[in-house]
Amino acid sequence: MSFPFAPHVSAMSPGASASPSDASAEASDDERLARLALARIIEPGSIAVHGALASQPATAVWERLRAGAPLGQLGQQALDGIAGRADGYDPRRDLDRLQQVGARVLCPGDAEWPAVSLAWDPLVMEGDVKQMAPPWVLFVRGPADLADLCSRSVAVVGARAATAYGTHVASQLCFGLSEAGVTVVSGGAYGIDAAAHRAALDAQAAPTVAVLASGVDVAYPRAHERLLAQVAEQGLLVSEVPPGSSPTRVRFLVRNRIIAALSGATVVVEAALRSGSLSTAGRAINLGKPVLAVPGPVTSAQSAGCHELIRSGKAVLATQLSEVLELTGAIGEHLPESMRGPVHPRDKLPEIVRRVLDAVPVRVPVGVARIARTAGVSALVVQQVLPPLLVAGLVEQRDGGWRLTTLGAGR
Amino acid sequence: MSFPFAPHVSAMSPGASASPSDASAEASDDERLARLALARIIEPGSIAVHGALASQPATAVWERLRAGAPLGQLGQQALDGIAGRADGYDPRRDLDRLQQVGARVLCPGDAEWPAVSLAWDPLVMEGDVKQMAPPWVLFVRGPADLADLCSRSVAVVGARAATAYGTHVASQLCFGLSEAGVTVVSGGAYGIDAAAHRAALDAQAAPTVAVLASGVDVAYPRAHERLLAQVAEQGLLVSEVPPGSSPTRVRFLVRNRIIAALSGATVVVEAALRSGSLSTAGRAINLGKPVLAVPGPVTSAQSAGCHELIRSGKAVLATQLSEVLELTGAIGEHLPESMRGPVHPRDKLPEIVRRVLDAVPVRVPVGVARIARTAGVSALVVQQVLPPLLVAGLVEQRDGGWRLTTLGAGR
Repeated sequence: MSFPFAPHVSAMSPGASASPSDASAEASDDERLARLALARIIEPGSIAVHGALASQPATAVWERLRAGAPLGQLGQQALDGIAGRADGYDPRRDLDRLQQVGARVLCPGDAEWPAVSLAWDPLVMEGDVKQMAPPWVLFVRGPADLADLCSRSVAVVGARAATAYGTHVASQLCFGLSEAGVTVVSGGAYGIDAAAHRAALDAQAAPTVAVLASGVDVAYPRAHERLLAQVAEQGLLVSEVPPGSSPTRVRFLVRNRIIAALSGATVVVEAALRSGSLSTAGRAINLGKPVLAVPGPVTSAQSAGCHELIRSGKAVLATQLSEVLELTGAIGEHLPESMRGPVHPRDKLPEIVRRVLDAVPVRVPVGVARIARTAGVSALVVQQVLPPLLVAGLVEQRDGGWRLTTLGAGR
Repeated sequence: MSFPFAPHVSAMSPGASASPSDASAEASDDERLARLALARIIEPGSIAVHGALASQPATAVWERLRAGAPLGQLGQQALDGIAGRADGYDPRRDLDRLQQVGARVLCPGDAEWPAVSLAWDPLVMEGDVKQMAPPWVLFVRGPADLADLCSRSVAVVGARAATAYGTHVASQLCFGLSEAGVTVVSGGAYGIDAAAHRAALDAQAAPTVAVLASGVDVAYPRAHERLLAQVAEQGLLVSEVPPGSSPTRVRFLVRNRIIAALSGATVVVEAALRSGSLSTAGRAINLGKPVLAVPGPVTSAQSAGCHELIRSGKAVLATQLSEVLELTGAIGEHLPESMRGPVHPRDKLPEIVRRVLDAVPVRVPVGVARIARTAGVSALVVQQVLPPLLVAGLVEQRDGGWRLTTLGAGR
């Protein structure tokens, strides 16, 4: 019943423990254990915990909650429940369990903590699930390095009740992605997720990452015990909840933001209109990352969500591997900045847009192919960038070509 | 061998014959006959003829060409060929033939000449077929009024080698369009075209229009003799070439611009990457009219052209009747202006875009639904209009909503 790292909690002098949210220093063992403990007593995505960790070490936050002290906006009922769960809990038991299954605890500041997590955006877009904070701890199981795998990764998600068509497309795509050295990230579920992981494993090239809504030692669904074991052998299982945890509806939704955050782009292969994979797409958009959707027959309910993503302009239509790779590369790296905050004509435009704009001549109109050559981007990129510039009044169409307007040529 | 309206050709005083391109006065019988004659001796879409008709009556142009006199950029060889075809030709024979099959000759200025023809744009976009002028005459066969039918019309075109899926989707869509009182315009070809006409006929509601690359008295393909006869009984057959003319490769391409021009929007149901229906889509874009494309399995070559149209931003993805009707209505009526000439922030934005922009608040961000209500447009329209405005720096995302930037709020 002894609190295993109580001595350190009193070490509150600024020099003793840098704010862990700096992500500049590796967490101490106590700090790591406290973050694990917080994951045990409170659901992931907590804004209150995230806020507290910005100014206090996790050991202090854990101590506060264990004592039932107020934290952020948490109500008394929530605080009582948290204190109850903390009572008598020893995080070393969870640590032992993790070590037994070959898993480890990652914290911000670790070399393996994915750099993409910096892109966390707690804001929610209309119609999306409730506001959620970045993860403060990740449990990973497998031989690969998470930061390494996420440096070039694509989430491929979709319907559990996938059709033969969707499974086929997901398999082809993910086999190709793995062969191209891209990590396939998915959720380990039936249908599209399973097809994605299996094809990535079959390619025997880049490893695959399954982000779970359960603990990394819990096989869910049970039928995927062998599949998840294979992923853990060659790639990684990732979770925000401690070992032994069962998945819940909320944990699936919270998990989806991790899938989006760990990936350079998100591809939705099949999704009905209320599919959970649409929440992953929404999270990716929040994070300023490109979303692609694979179309299908308009007569198939399992493609209706994909079509809606494309129609609403949230996703780019994707038909083949090269189109996914294109958005995973140059554009994807530039998009996050473009999707945040306000941008002003010319000087504050996203880099890729500015490159295209710089390639449009002032006087004699030229075609898309010429602009693409000058800008050093694909014709497809030019075709996607020009219409918004036209609406913005920065470029105009003349004699079958494109040139700058007075506004576009000036500042 | 007598030229049937020679006396009128000498009547060149300005008062005697208003420029027929004014489209303000109905053509005289002689003028009508001369335009028919021009269609017989020169292929449709001629820039030279179009230019000449802007300042001279057709009777004068016919007389020039019959005499082998220079016209526009036409070379000597072309002029010789034209004069040869004119030699001994009596347009009354064609007029008789037209009357035999219940067809008539329409000219600009006729009440039945479709108003949409005003939108003709001789400019070509990159990769499209060569520059073409508006029609100077149309041959129509059937009981309906062309201008009336075109006041609410949608072109539904696609692959000749359509799949069962494409045929099914085209049928469902066109049955619904006809029931909604919308004229289905297509090309009378195998595959999607035939499915479109048949479904419109089956609906027994709005008539359908088949625009032919042959004369209105020539059934092409032969297997569609009965189908085209049914169209002619209830709707209209339309052509630019005189009776008895066979279709040629060039005439199909030239015909496609008529399909696009007669329709408020163009829907491509299935199209391979080099399908002729993509040229119809290109013509519709040139004319500033909305293009929609129906997606399909990415594994189907017959959907690849549709996917490319959507990916390149040339077409909106369409999955059902209501989405086609939406673009055929309010938006379609406003688009032409937006696609022409340069536009400048705010005051010169397309009407629909300005309406959305006017509904975005300066200070407190609001959601898409609120903007849609204020603007009096659908949420889909708002979702399509906001991203370009974001890139243009006129709006920004804050706290999950949208508001104007300093630039967007000013002039």
